[in-house]
Amino acid sequence: MLVVQKYGGTSVRDIERIRNVAKKAIAYKERGMDVIVVVSAMSGETDKLLNLAHDIAKFPDERELDVLISTGEQVTSALLAITLKEMGHDAISLLANQVRIISDAAFGSARIAEIEEEKIFSELKTGKIIVVPGFQGVDESGNITTLGRGGSDTTAVALAAALKADFCEIYTDVDGVYTTDPNICEKARKLDRISYDEMLEMASLGAKVLQIRSVELAQKYNVSLLVKSSLVEGKGTLVCKEDMVMMEKVVISGVTYNKNEAKITVSRVPDKPGIASKIFSALADANIIVDMIVQNVSRENYNDITFTVVKADARKALKITQEIADGIGAVEVALDEDIAKVSIVGLGMRSHSGIASKMFTILANEGINIKLISTSEIKISCVIESKYGELAVRALHKHFGLDAEEIKEET
Amino acid sequence: MLVVQKYGGTSVRDIERIRNVAKKAIAYKERGMDVIVVVSAMSGETDKLLNLAHDIAKFPDERELDVLISTGEQVTSALLAITLKEMGHDAISLLANQVRIISDAAFGSARIAEIEEEKIFSELKTGKIIVVPGFQGVDESGNITTLGRGGSDTTAVALAAALKADFCEIYTDVDGVYTTDPNICEKARKLDRISYDEMLEMASLGAKVLQIRSVELAQKYNVSLLVKSSLVEGKGTLVCKEDMVMMEKVVISGVTYNKNEAKITVSRVPDKPGIASKIFSALADANIIVDMIVQNVSRENYNDITFTVVKADARKALKITQEIADGIGAVEVALDEDIAKVSIVGLGMRSHSGIASKMFTILANEGINIKLISTSEIKISCVIESKYGELAVRALHKHFGLDAEEIKEET
Repeated sequence: MLVVQKYGGTSVRDIERIRNVAKKAIAYKERGMDVIVVVSAMSGETDKLLNLAHDIAKFPDERELDVLISTGEQVTSALLAITLKEMGHDAISLLANQVRIISDAAFGSARIAEIEEEKIFSELKTGKIIVVPGFQGVDESGNITTLGRGGSDTTAVALAAALKADFCEIYTDVDGVYTTDPNICEKARKLDRISYDEMLEMASLGAKVLQIRSVELAQKYNVSLLVKSSLVEGKGTLVCKEDMVMMEKVVISGVTYNKNEAKITVSRVPDKPGIASKIFSALADANIIVDMIVQNVSRENYNDITFTVVKADARKALKITQEIADGIGAVEVALDEDIAKVSIVGLGMRSHSGIASKMFTILANEGINIKLISTSEIKISCVIESKYGELAVRALHKHFGLDAEEIKEET
Repeated sequence: MLVVQKYGGTSVRDIERIRNVAKKAIAYKERGMDVIVVVSAMSGETDKLLNLAHDIAKFPDERELDVLISTGEQVTSALLAITLKEMGHDAISLLANQVRIISDAAFGSARIAEIEEEKIFSELKTGKIIVVPGFQGVDESGNITTLGRGGSDTTAVALAAALKADFCEIYTDVDGVYTTDPNICEKARKLDRISYDEMLEMASLGAKVLQIRSVELAQKYNVSLLVKSSLVEGKGTLVCKEDMVMMEKVVISGVTYNKNEAKITVSRVPDKPGIASKIFSALADANIIVDMIVQNVSRENYNDITFTVVKADARKALKITQEIADGIGAVEVALDEDIAKVSIVGLGMRSHSGIASKMFTILANEGINIKLISTSEIKISCVIESKYGELAVRALHKHFGLDAEEIKEET
């Protein structure tokens, strides 16, 4: 039996925590399993290195930046291997070029292309616990690469997939995935299971537990991920295939919330092909990421187009949109920064009718006006007035039956 | 024309100093030379990493310790390459496994076996400044190794030798090699040139400017080393072949001084074969390094054996020696911790007679009694009472004509 464990920065932030990690790895080993441990840099280290580079250059050379910041994970790997050996268990650290974890050459956001198995398997065979620095790869020419923020999750999942591990554990500073943000709704409940698709919707909507790419990769190779805390005992949340989740028979899995977006509406746009394309191409050229896009039905050959962007980009997006609107004769461009987006996510939507109307009713009963609606297969998002954001989350959480005390079998 | 430059920890201790290093490298490049820069870890970083490891284990695993501490030089290499590129000069960092610098597998004190040339030469050909982390190698199996304290000097010399560099500069925080310690003798004078042999005698006697192994390597491959300060302008000291030094026609090159030793005397040792061997084998088994060993002529079939060890080992050495003395019937074992060793070093001794007697006369004229004498081809060492140490250094420095104002052409 082979397990891959990944520990984030706060789980290895000092020697005491590294000892704690070593104990967990040894516990599995003593139960007869082969263990591979993937570690992040000690918390704060990557930022410290990045700050050094940015003190030198506004845009530091990307190849050299990867040489620099990959040292953070290398340090943790060596310290963990030293700790494991000190505790009497044979161990070895294997860096990306020693494993080897081969990636493309996109420095700073490289993608893993292939993981060689021989070296790891031969070291496992001698009984060693293998420690691998997360976040780093090596390209075909032998250059060090890094996989982007949160890349250690991806390293762990890629290793689990390539080596056909029996399970993959992601240890972090939270004890699992919650139905909503416990800071907003005190009745938020930890989920036992969540599907990959739901997790992807939750993650991109703001529940930052796992790197999105690692979830996509886990889904692609069907690697079950157990997200749990390295500090408190608990069974965590299993991120897994849909059919393993459906057994729980809940309609929606979570309520998410985002106050960091602004809404731009372009009114009375002539209903001609290519106009939406013109607006969103210009925004893309300016590196502005657009989240929701809603275009309502044509009236008298005119459309209204509404979209949301992160607040930091709002003024720039408004200016670009205004310029294009002037060129195509749209009547008005309006910016609304006073918004919150609340979303419900759940596989149950596919088989249960009336979820959307139930959501709208719950919001209406609280006196909350809906400004914008957008739906996908397993998600419904509503943009509402900012001040009602938290109220909306709590109301949806309660009326969709997610509140902690209503699910007795959970405790 | 190819130059290898090496910068020590204080020369790269912050971003400002790294910029200074970049400027020096670029200055050579702009004069049409190919430049390879070898860097140490930022000062204090290696100790910080070592402390982390020693907080975990008294004897950390040696392989993993090398994985850990090699990150210090990797960080500096990346930062320097980023700085060079920011200043508009193409540059690339090449780690030991990218160059490759192949060593044996003696973690913590590895020796370089071979340096591959292809990668460096192909990168030099494209006009890049090459940055190489000092101190690190990679063994045949791809494990990271380190070369021991001061190993960055060795990296620089080995690169200069392997790539047949035209010269090799060692930048440090002193502006060259001095005739003696300027803290003891204010008339200490910077040497323009010193031979490898003299440098080896000076280094092992306490003038810690260059790692001994790097000087041995430089001698073996006839690499001229220019030792200079990275902070102040100056021509530094050239460490080179004997025949290039002799032109200066000075009899002795320096006076060194060591207060960190203790002297143990074993009196009335029976003059039988194997007794000295018994004592020094026992000390070696206890990992005690013996410096001077003096045995005087046999009198009535008895000898006196005197030797020196570092003070930290003195009590342990005394105990071991006493046990052996008891076994062989030596009359007395005495420890003297109140000593200083002063030495004069110089190629001139070979061709000039009377240097030793001149030394003894100078000391006698100051009323200093000599407790022990030991000589090699280019060095004479005297052990004297501790309190006379500094006085002896100044007297020897003056009377052998080393004082700064006496050598007018030096200024």
